[in-house]
Amino acid sequence: MTSTKITTTKVIAKKTKPATDQLEFGRHFTDHMFVMDYHTDKGWYDPRIVPYQAITLDPAAMVYHYGQTVFEGLKAYVTETNDVHLFRPEQNVKRLNRSNERMCIPEIDEELALRALKELVKLEKEWIPNAPGTSLYIRPFVIATEPYLGVAPSKQYKFVIILSPVGAYYKEGINPVKIAVENKYIRAIKGGTGEAKTAGNYAGSLIAQEKVSDAGYAQVLWLDGLEKKYIEEVGSMNVFFKINGEVITPALNGSILPGVTRNSVIQLLKHWNIPVKEEKIALEDIKIAYKNGSLEEAFGAGTAAVISPIGEFACEDETIVINNHQTGDLAKRLYDTLTGIQYGKIKDPFDWIVKLT
Amino acid sequence: MTSTKITTTKVIAKKTKPATDQLEFGRHFTDHMFVMDYHTDKGWYDPRIVPYQAITLDPAAMVYHYGQTVFEGLKAYVTETNDVHLFRPEQNVKRLNRSNERMCIPEIDEELALRALKELVKLEKEWIPNAPGTSLYIRPFVIATEPYLGVAPSKQYKFVIILSPVGAYYKEGINPVKIAVENKYIRAIKGGTGEAKTAGNYAGSLIAQEKVSDAGYAQVLWLDGLEKKYIEEVGSMNVFFKINGEVITPALNGSILPGVTRNSVIQLLKHWNIPVKEEKIALEDIKIAYKNGSLEEAFGAGTAAVISPIGEFACEDETIVINNHQTGDLAKRLYDTLTGIQYGKIKDPFDWIVKLT
Repeated sequence: MTSTKITTTKVIAKKTKPATDQLEFGRHFTDHMFVMDYHTDKGWYDPRIVPYQAITLDPAAMVYHYGQTVFEGLKAYVTETNDVHLFRPEQNVKRLNRSNERMCIPEIDEELALRALKELVKLEKEWIPNAPGTSLYIRPFVIATEPYLGVAPSKQYKFVIILSPVGAYYKEGINPVKIAVENKYIRAIKGGTGEAKTAGNYAGSLIAQEKVSDAGYAQVLWLDGLEKKYIEEVGSMNVFFKINGEVITPALNGSILPGVTRNSVIQLLKHWNIPVKEEKIALEDIKIAYKNGSLEEAFGAGTAAVISPIGEFACEDETIVINNHQTGDLAKRLYDTLTGIQYGKIKDPFDWIVKLT
Repeated sequence: MTSTKITTTKVIAKKTKPATDQLEFGRHFTDHMFVMDYHTDKGWYDPRIVPYQAITLDPAAMVYHYGQTVFEGLKAYVTETNDVHLFRPEQNVKRLNRSNERMCIPEIDEELALRALKELVKLEKEWIPNAPGTSLYIRPFVIATEPYLGVAPSKQYKFVIILSPVGAYYKEGINPVKIAVENKYIRAIKGGTGEAKTAGNYAGSLIAQEKVSDAGYAQVLWLDGLEKKYIEEVGSMNVFFKINGEVITPALNGSILPGVTRNSVIQLLKHWNIPVKEEKIALEDIKIAYKNGSLEEAFGAGTAAVISPIGEFACEDETIVINNHQTGDLAKRLYDTLTGIQYGKIKDPFDWIVKLT
């Protein structure tokens, strides 16, 4: 597969690009996309960059009925010296295949997927916005396309990569959000699909998000599905706490998404000699730390926001206020360092950045 | 909505119908389909019967990424007197809306959905096969179509109904299947999406099915996600046991699909004065009943198979053999009665049948 050539068909007329200050998340798409097909008789075949276009599937296509699909999300950044940076893209490609395995989707050659991603971003370089905090969001995804209503793994798939220029996540500066603890709905459970980046996890979470956003909360805090005692994720981000100088994040237990930003935060903290632990965290222990004054910070970590400081957790019986609703020093330092590395403003001691040439 | 007219555009050239003895499940589709669109600004609009055709969506359509989708499954039967029977279709339409609610999909007018279903089946009457055991499978489904990568309920949807002529489920007569008890993977959990008929539940179950089918088992027995002690479903069917003359099925606990066939079986048993209970069932209690000789029958119940007798459960530590791998009398009686009612061969004391006129 390493020699597989990706063919390119360019658009005749390019789209008008949206103004940088008009950019939202995931609303605008570039001129081209990558597509590769799979059939059990042929394996993955025909990798190609083509004009951005609709996908036409039989109404019996399995993705519409049984949701066999996986996706990834990462970003390309343009630097002050006009270089294009990808942040740990090989991690997303690896996770794509781990998700594929759980969802019975055939493995994708990682070298080819990475090459496809790079070639597509290079072709669309002029779509990468360069205002502070903006980037080009990259969405690789796989869908089951066989027209068949039997409940079984599909024999046909499409692997697609689309690109979307996105605005700054924090338009008015980084600010802590309020989070509601979710007591009724469950995101995932060990033995289910929580570790995989697959559609069903997100579809199931919408109802909880709807419920709390009406009440002014940015996200929900997901508790474990077994006992509803232990902290899992916040919205679609991983979550960290700083208690008494020590940083703690839920251990990967089979129902938590292994985030690339999560992993990067852990590596950075170790690099800085700040103690960091991955373990089971009871909501009760966070309440205790809040009461005895040792809860210093809380923040989410994910590709979209990078670091999202948390100012408040609304529990059923009480409200936990963190750092007086102010962004903590550690959250700020992590945000500045991660985005600094991503935008090439500060040194990358980890070889995380892949520069497109 | 009750006055909303459904427009019809007929095909110019009809497809060649597959030979009845060549029919599989869910491989062939009829000449027409029903489609209705939704936009938050307009509500559901433009209900129409059109030639069966591909669905064309933007690659950013939310169904491909976040799996916001629900579906239903029911059947139309042609009787010896050439009538067309639907079996409790209003139940499927009601469940569709219950699934919609869980998945944050806007409610569909039930009268209109039922009328759409009837008009489509009537138009495609010649597609309903009439060999014993054959039927026309009806698949209503809703998909989120808005091109947007934010994790939020879609603002646009399509409601589609497609029809598929299907062969007899039991080609060589009704025969008990072997079932493997699943100990690693979980289908659903209370607070998740198990009660809804939504894509993600099926996508997540494929890996367990793959694992056991290689070893010669027809389906898996799903245990509860909390303790892995209690019986939930078998494959994509509800499950019943007959112990000491009494029938028992898992109570609807928030993670079990409320099957229409399940409900019909319960009603039939009550009608026959056979004791039937819905309660939490520990696998351990089934093992005990097996050992003391009181486990008389076990069977699955669902639209596809109607009744699927179970001859064996393979547990980690032992094998439970039921009724010497023979179909039990009660399973046979239920199968004969339900299919008899469906095909109009025996009286329907419950007003379950909706005859198309």
